[in-house]
Parts: sequence; structure tokens; C-alpha cells
Amino acid sequence: MQEIKIYKTDAPKAKPTGALGFGKIFTDHMFIMEYTAGQGWHDPRIVPYAPIELDPSAMVFHYAQEIFEGLKAYRTKDGSIQLFRPYENANRMNRSADRLCIPEIDPDFWVKAVSTLVEVDKDWVPYEEGTSLYIRPFVIATDPMLGVHPSKTYKFIIILSPVGSYYAGGLSPVRIYIETKFVRAVRGGTGEAKAGGNYAASIKSQEVSESLGFSQVLWLDGVEQKYIEEVGAMNVFFKIDGKVVTPALVGSILPGITRKSTIELLKDWGYEVEERRLSAAEVEEAAKAGKLEEMFGTGTAAVISPVGLLRIGDVDITINNGEIGPLSQKLYDTLTGIQWGRVEDTKNWVYKI
Amino acid sequence: MQEIKIYKTDAPKAKPTGALGFGKIFTDHMFIMEYTAGQGWHDPRIVPYAPIELDPSAMVFHYAQEIFEGLKAYRTKDGSIQLFRPYENANRMNRSADRLCIPEIDPDFWVKAVSTLVEVDKDWVPYEEGTSLYIRPFVIATDPMLGVHPSKTYKFIIILSPVGSYYAGGLSPVRIYIETKFVRAVRGGTGEAKAGGNYAASIKSQEVSESLGFSQVLWLDGVEQKYIEEVGAMNVFFKIDGKVVTPALVGSILPGITRKSTIELLKDWGYEVEERRLSAAEVEEAAKAGKLEEMFGTGTAAVISPVGLLRIGDVDITINNGEIGPLSQKLYDTLTGIQWGRVEDTKNWVYKI
Repeated sequence: MQEIKIYKTDAPKAKPTGALGFGKIFTDHMFIMEYTAGQGWHDPRIVPYAPIELDPSAMVFHYAQEIFEGLKAYRTKDGSIQLFRPYENANRMNRSADRLCIPEIDPDFWVKAVSTLVEVDKDWVPYEEGTSLYIRPFVIATDPMLGVHPSKTYKFIIILSPVGSYYAGGLSPVRIYIETKFVRAVRGGTGEAKAGGNYAASIKSQEVSESLGFSQVLWLDGVEQKYIEEVGAMNVFFKIDGKVVTPALVGSILPGITRKSTIELLKDWGYEVEERRLSAAEVEEAAKAGKLEEMFGTGTAAVISPVGLLRIGDVDITINNGEIGPLSQKLYDTLTGIQWGRVEDTKNWVYKI
Repeated sequence: MQEIKIYKTDAPKAKPTGALGFGKIFTDHMFIMEYTAGQGWHDPRIVPYAPIELDPSAMVFHYAQEIFEGLKAYRTKDGSIQLFRPYENANRMNRSADRLCIPEIDPDFWVKAVSTLVEVDKDWVPYEEGTSLYIRPFVIATDPMLGVHPSKTYKFIIILSPVGSYYAGGLSPVRIYIETKFVRAVRGGTGEAKAGGNYAASIKSQEVSESLGFSQVLWLDGVEQKYIEEVGAMNVFFKIDGKVVTPALVGSILPGITRKSTIELLKDWGYEVEERRLSAAEVEEAAKAGKLEEMFGTGTAAVISPVGLLRIGDVDITINNGEIGPLSQKLYDTLTGIQWGRVEDTKNWVYKI
């Protein structure tokens, strides 16, 4: 495995004192390595966090040949630092890479790069309840040419951002509505890849939803605009009549790591979990019949995001009286408990730095 | 209208002497201006062509909030320089901007920026038959933060690249096949915008098609995978039984300027032009019945790209004996004639620099 050279900054920044927010503050260092066709990935190094220089014709600016990942480093009670299932991120990034014709990265080296960088900036992992160090690995295509082809050169960069608790006022349900105009992804497209273009396509909906007083939209499938896919940038679960249902990974849905972990926990707890097609109409009917018990999103940022109100067309459905359901709460407590080291990691999900 | 400041290079590059290719060589200068929320677009300037510096957290690297345009400057016989319908590009860029939540740019200023830059680098507009100066305006989101929201800051940049004749050996038909696995775009998505993510999604198909000895793929609609949308990065036309048919602009298809010009010319010439849904099956039936007379792509790069062979499933359809059809040739001659000033511009398409 290649050696990672470390060049430490001479001018460390002051640590933030106020509210951290999300993804606005960056640490003292970043990881970077380059790919050159014929040579492979080379020159891995940790350097002071600084702007990068690219030719204005660099492919990433024109054809969005770019992928990313997101995970967190958590500070435990004893002061140590741990990651949550980082190999899942490494492997998913390689699947995204394949879809976007980007060269893959050895998962062991990927995890080593992440953990080495976190180790270098370990003082940046915050201590306050609910805070963490968000880790953003990404690859961008850098060839200085305008032909629509896979780039022959890339940069793999990892940056770190201390982030606040997603729920500053405690876990609280969100309001969402079903998006019927815009489409996020379709089978055969790039929906299951963590590729920039998917997010670019979602910004407009996100803007509209916020202007209407909602926090997210619920995406439907791109083919029939009938089946539920994701909520905002999270996967989505429904507890219907005691069973838990979540959309199957059909190619247009992001294969979330919190989603996967949630399914594993639910099965451990004896729940029947169905990964299948689920229409908006089925959810509406279940709600009308009083069988829609809980609904929640899953993702790295919020972990579990309970949905208190779902608008389908003109119908507003209040779920569990707009309150956090007991299963949502239990999943949140368990997952965050494992992540912050308060709950025993019986599943070997934790990766110690 | 804002004044464009001009800072000329002290070290002009040597002009290229060999084959130009496409989008590999850039001129001495570039146009750049910034957008800041609350302030609007500001500081328009022409500066020496140089790398740009961005924070590694810049939104364009993560969420592909980026749009672009493509047009050309042509050298006429008398040595003057002209553009082809630049306001069409300016207006289309604003439509792309709207879809991607990017602030619009005044079309008059947009054309002024393009023409001022071409004027500064006028010696870079090549003289050889079929060559031109490719103009690439693009906007990238530059906010240094990782939340998925519209950026509050942007850069609008224009770069120039002298390009060779698309058909080095003269106009010649290409081989394409119908893509049935991957999908480029779906209604409700970003297909009609010139957004990076659409191109990222297309790279894999393009790779596969080249490995199979084809030059492009023919995209089907994302909903039913039945109706023809575009070929590669071009619009597509079929001459069937004397009439010309091209897919209607249903939201997932790029509204090409060469497409629009082609339709206008065909109507002037008395052809019946149908913009409508057209299935792959209809094309196959027309071919079997001997009624598929010509097929061609339209785009800024190739202008008119005749298709000599179309593979539908296992069936190879040879079109017009694999030769350039008379209508394809006439369109090519007329459009390139107007662009290079050899044919009278009766439609006011030409914009003199």
C-alpha cells in the first residue's frame, strides 16, 4: 500500500466556538492524490487545507464527471474517535466510480486515507452532544479538454468539516410533500451513484419545497411517477400495520448505509422488513385505514428523520399525531448510540481511529 | 451595460501549427465575471488564460451546479469573423440556468462578452477550410460549503479553442446503435438543460459504443424506452417517405440551435417537417418498407452528421447504402455555407464581430 506523505500546516486555524452548522467550516488539512492514465493513483499526501487550481477547461466544470461520499468521525465518551462502517462508503464510491467511468480506489487504501487524515486533524473532532466531524471524500475529472470522454486524469480529495447536531432542538419530525413535477432519477440513469448531477437536478425541487414551508420532497420513480423512491437526500421507510416497508434498490435509488444498517437492526429486532415497490397510493390508503404508523428518512446527516406530515396531492396526512414514533426513536437512539460509542457495537460496525 | 475591462497577456502563446482536434488548445485570453447574491453579476473582465483557484468545498465539485454553452466563430473568405445565432445560445443558457437555480445573465451582455473576447483573440480564429474557433461559455457554483442548496456565488467564464474540421476526411456517415440499457434523461429531469450531469450520465454509453465500433448511441426516452430522443450529443432527424421527422422537444431533449435552423431551412425548402414522438419500431418498419431515406444528427460540432448504419437490437439497418443522402448534403452545404459566409445569410442568422 502506498505511503501517505504528511505535510503539516505552519498556521493552524482557530477552532470554531459558536454553532457549527453543516459543511461550512473546514479543518487544517486535506488529503489529495492524483490519477494519471497509465500510472494509476499516485502521490497520496496530506497537506494544509487550501484552494485547488484547475484549468478552466477541466472536465469537472463542463461534464460533471465527479463522485463523492459522506461519512462521519464520532467522539466517544472516553475521548477516542471512531468511524461508522467506512468500508461501505469505500465500496459504494467504487460503484459510483464504475457508473461514471472513473478509476476505482482500493478500499483498504481509501479507509487508510480517511483515517490518517482524521488522525492528523483529530483535535477538530468536536466533543459536544450530537456533534461530529463530517468527512467528504470526492473525485473530480481534471483533463483540460472539452471532448465528452472519460478523463485521463483525476484528483481524489478528502476534506473534513466539524458539524453540529442535525437536530439542534432535539429530534423533531419534518413536513414533506410528494414531488410530481420534477424527477430526480430514472432506472438506467445515475440515481444509484453518488454523482454530482443527481444533486444538481434536485436543487430546484428543494428550493420550491422550502418556499412552501416543507423541509424535503418525496421523490417518485421517473418511469411511472407512482412509486416512492427517496425523501430529499435520504432513503425512506414506512411502518404500516406493524411491518416496515422501504423501496427496493431498483437502480435509481441511492443505496444508503444508514438504510442498510436500519434494515439489519429491524430484522435483529424481529420486524418483518419488506424491500419492494411501494406506491404513493398505497401509503395514502394505509394512512386512511389508520395503518400508517410511522414514516422516517435515513441518512448520514440526520441518521433518522421522522416525518410528521406528508402531503399527497391536496391531502395532508398527519403521521403518528405529528410526533416521533417509538420505532423511529429506538432506531435513532440505537444508531447514534453505536456511532457515539454509548451502545455496544455487537455488529462490528465501528472502526476505531 | 457593464464595461468589460481588458487585461492583455504579456506572453502570447505560439499559434498551433498541426492538426487542431477538438477542445484541446486554448487561446491567450478568457472572459470571467463573478456573481454574488445581493450584488448580482460583477467585475466582468478579459484576462490572460490561466488556471482558476477554488476552495475544495466549492459546490461545483460536489453537486454539479454547472451549465454551459457551445458555439463557434467562423473566418469568412474576406478575413472577417462571424458568429452563428449567438442570442439563441444566450437564451438557452438562461433556460438552463433557471432549471439549475443559477442566476441569469442579460443576453445582450452575454453576446457582448462573447464577441469582445473573440475580438481580443481574433488572430486565433483559424483560416483553414472547415476550421473555426469554438466558444465555450460556462457557469460554475463556487460557494465553499457542503449543504445541498443553490450557491450564492458563481463564476461565468468563457474560453476559446481553435478547432479542426469535424470531418477531416470530408463529410462521412457514422454508425450508431440504439441504447437500451442506459438512459440519458427523463421528463422532469434536466435533459433539456445544458447541464454537466447529463453529459456525465452519457459517458459510459459513449465508452461502450466506441468499444463496439460505433461512434454514437441513439438515446430512447427514459419512461418507456421506446421513443427516440437524441443521438449522442446531437439532435436527430429522419427522412421517411419524403417527409422529415424529428423528436418533439418534450423536456428531456436538448433544444439544439442547429436543430432549429435545420427545421427552418427544411420548411423554407417546402419540406413537411413533423416534430413528434417517433418510436424505434416506426423507424425499423420504415426501413423495412424501404421508406427510410436518410437519417442525420445535428449539432454545433459536426453541423450535420449523416448516419449510414443504425443497429436496432440485432438488426443492422443500412441507410441510403451507407452514403450521404442528398438532403443531408444540402443541409450541410447550406448551414456551413452561411456559417463561413459562402452562402448568403437571408435569415439574419449571422452576427458579425
